[in-house]
Amino acid sequence: MRTLLRRVYYVDAFMEEAKRGDILIDGDSIVEIGEEIPISEDMEVLDCKFKKAVIPGLVNAHTHAAMTLLRGLGEERPLKEWLEEKIWQVEAKLTPEDIYWGTSLALLEMTSMGVTAFADMYFEMEEVGSAAQQFGARCALAKGIIGTDESNVEKTLSLIDHFKGQELVNVQIGPHAPYTVPAEMYKRLCDLALDKGVGVHTHFMEAPWERGFLMEKYGMTPVDFLENSGLLSVPVALLAHCVWMEEEEIEKMSCPSVQVAHNPSSNLKLGSGIAPLRGYLDRGVTVSLGTDGAASNNRLDVWEEMRLAALLHKGKELDPTCCKAKEVLKMATFNGARALGFDKVGRIERSWKADLAMIDLDKPHYVGFDCANLVHYLVYAGSSADVVGTMVNGVWVYYHGNYKYKEAEFVRERAQKSRERICS
Amino acid sequence: MRTLLRRVYYVDAFMEEAKRGDILIDGDSIVEIGEEIPISEDMEVLDCKFKKAVIPGLVNAHTHAAMTLLRGLGEERPLKEWLEEKIWQVEAKLTPEDIYWGTSLALLEMTSMGVTAFADMYFEMEEVGSAAQQFGARCALAKGIIGTDESNVEKTLSLIDHFKGQELVNVQIGPHAPYTVPAEMYKRLCDLALDKGVGVHTHFMEAPWERGFLMEKYGMTPVDFLENSGLLSVPVALLAHCVWMEEEEIEKMSCPSVQVAHNPSSNLKLGSGIAPLRGYLDRGVTVSLGTDGAASNNRLDVWEEMRLAALLHKGKELDPTCCKAKEVLKMATFNGARALGFDKVGRIERSWKADLAMIDLDKPHYVGFDCANLVHYLVYAGSSADVVGTMVNGVWVYYHGNYKYKEAEFVRERAQKSRERICS
Repeated sequence: MRTLLRRVYYVDAFMEEAKRGDILIDGDSIVEIGEEIPISEDMEVLDCKFKKAVIPGLVNAHTHAAMTLLRGLGEERPLKEWLEEKIWQVEAKLTPEDIYWGTSLALLEMTSMGVTAFADMYFEMEEVGSAAQQFGARCALAKGIIGTDESNVEKTLSLIDHFKGQELVNVQIGPHAPYTVPAEMYKRLCDLALDKGVGVHTHFMEAPWERGFLMEKYGMTPVDFLENSGLLSVPVALLAHCVWMEEEEIEKMSCPSVQVAHNPSSNLKLGSGIAPLRGYLDRGVTVSLGTDGAASNNRLDVWEEMRLAALLHKGKELDPTCCKAKEVLKMATFNGARALGFDKVGRIERSWKADLAMIDLDKPHYVGFDCANLVHYLVYAGSSADVVGTMVNGVWVYYHGNYKYKEAEFVRERAQKSRERICS
Repeated sequence: MRTLLRRVYYVDAFMEEAKRGDILIDGDSIVEIGEEIPISEDMEVLDCKFKKAVIPGLVNAHTHAAMTLLRGLGEERPLKEWLEEKIWQVEAKLTPEDIYWGTSLALLEMTSMGVTAFADMYFEMEEVGSAAQQFGARCALAKGIIGTDESNVEKTLSLIDHFKGQELVNVQIGPHAPYTVPAEMYKRLCDLALDKGVGVHTHFMEAPWERGFLMEKYGMTPVDFLENSGLLSVPVALLAHCVWMEEEEIEKMSCPSVQVAHNPSSNLKLGSGIAPLRGYLDRGVTVSLGTDGAASNNRLDVWEEMRLAALLHKGKELDPTCCKAKEVLKMATFNGARALGFDKVGRIERSWKADLAMIDLDKPHYVGFDCANLVHYLVYAGSSADVVGTMVNGVWVYYHGNYKYKEAEFVRERAQKSRERICS
């Protein structure tokens, strides 16, 4: 059965402006886009009467999905106290089953908001991948590695084996951060990434003190560290946060492998600061968008990150022309898919994967939209609450309140039980 | 008929934490709050089974509601070009009828998002008030005054007469800004406000160049201007934006009449900057929240402003402990009501007005909430999409997708027509 999305507005970050027309999906891909695609019997036809928009699915390029179970713990505390007294204590109690249900809870939230793919760094990653598969979502999994324990390398290798050949799952290698993983271990992990042809997902320069730490411990600047560790040569170096890079350092990050995952909400909430996004964009550094975990956001709403990224840097730079709606749409879709290591994902284009979000334009805040301004309406006036359908690889994983493979009520109950146990 | 909200969580900015219980509403007020209020026949009983939360209605303390018709015009341009080439040209075409339908469109949006009251500064304010009354919303109306034309004073006086005795409508006096209204006219308008016992609603120090303007034109600092104009002595001085006040000046703004309306989204979007909110809160200056108009936000979502206010200043100050959830809830409710000149609005308290928002807690992002952390869940994880009901003065003006007094479809169509005409 093919799916015909009839009479929709559609737009991606590469189109000059939105268009009106039909989109035909066969299997996992968009196979035709046109003005009036002839209807045939083997099509499920969804006539949207130009009251819906279709955009590429949103990609959450940095999260810790199972941290939905830790949402709201120890709010409004200094970072160190929050981590040591709240987060780490509770994380120590998490079982593989908790990770599964916490991730499932995250997927309830994300897939209802147009998110089709996410890059996750946590532990018990088989559970994360399993939950994602059971929701039909695309993901890039990285087991968070701390220290030099060789068993973590083995676990990563076994993760790669475990999901080999799974189309919706990429595995990445996940050294936690330069202050928890020694430089030699980074090198070893980057070599492994090169060898296996996979990406590396790591936290980088989230807090201002990390610069002093690198200088003191290794006599290196952040860019020295990127170069020496091998991060600039791996297939993908997904660097989460990057709040504290200096303008003159940014130039050196502009290499094809580097992908900055910008997490504006989390960076604000934890008091980490405001990343130099304008600098990244001006110097051709590829940027995607992430929510970070629900403990520090506290939403998993990439749409919110789009709006915030578009607004925040205008205010910081005192420049209403900076960070345009189309740029953030690209960050949230095409760039995110690349950061996760997926090809042909993130555009509305023939032969590209049918990872899509459908948006209800029949709402008061869309009065006045047209083809030329639709992206502005979506980014500045729209929100994830406007999403009515989320399609991954040609399948509606969420549609008008229903999830294709999962009962929301059941997931919530199981997650609630996990929450109660770990907080008791 | 009385209304009993049974088995809800309820919380306002003055409660230590949320409580579980029942709220009884009679006429326009909350008449009882308790654990198990006995049911009687004259009650409409809404049993929420502890799956709903009730908070005071949100107050939009600075907007130009009818600018919904100008949403998305001339995005991402320098401010001056945007105003001169887009906004002012189109505003010149607005008829009273347009103002009515544009405001109605704003009310569709606001009332569905838990907003129960708004402070509006625009023109044709009888139309704005009429639209608000027909939606059942509370408002404070200020005709925007530019220059020294005496007819504007007359129009304001006639506005005061027009809405005399209307419980849901306050009239305020609206000098546009110090750079469009001479100091002597401010004085005249502040004298009038004192005489009539009404508030003044004005733009103040939105852009950095306003300081130089005041110094050059009058030899005054912003605080000098506040003192000299009489703004510090009127019943309410609702100062929108206040982005560019210096820390040492803030102390002098801490007087009972001054109400800063913080508009974080709009200040970011127009590249105006980030207001010194921490300074205002630390020095006891009362702050409320506004969206500004839909042309510069582009939403009318006070919830979004709550979340943004809570996050933004943590990031700016590099301090995760600053600007707490409860503080922004107070800004968005109680403080907003005071800024609009309404008494006994903005708390969940016996004999206070029943201006309330009801929130659906049966959503994935509320797993883990309890009485102690509910405000954090609402502000950081929640959104206006969680609002299921909005009550003003004891009446559900919006409930589960329906507006009490208006057909959404009809309003949208009429607004669409206005939009098409003014943009043609």
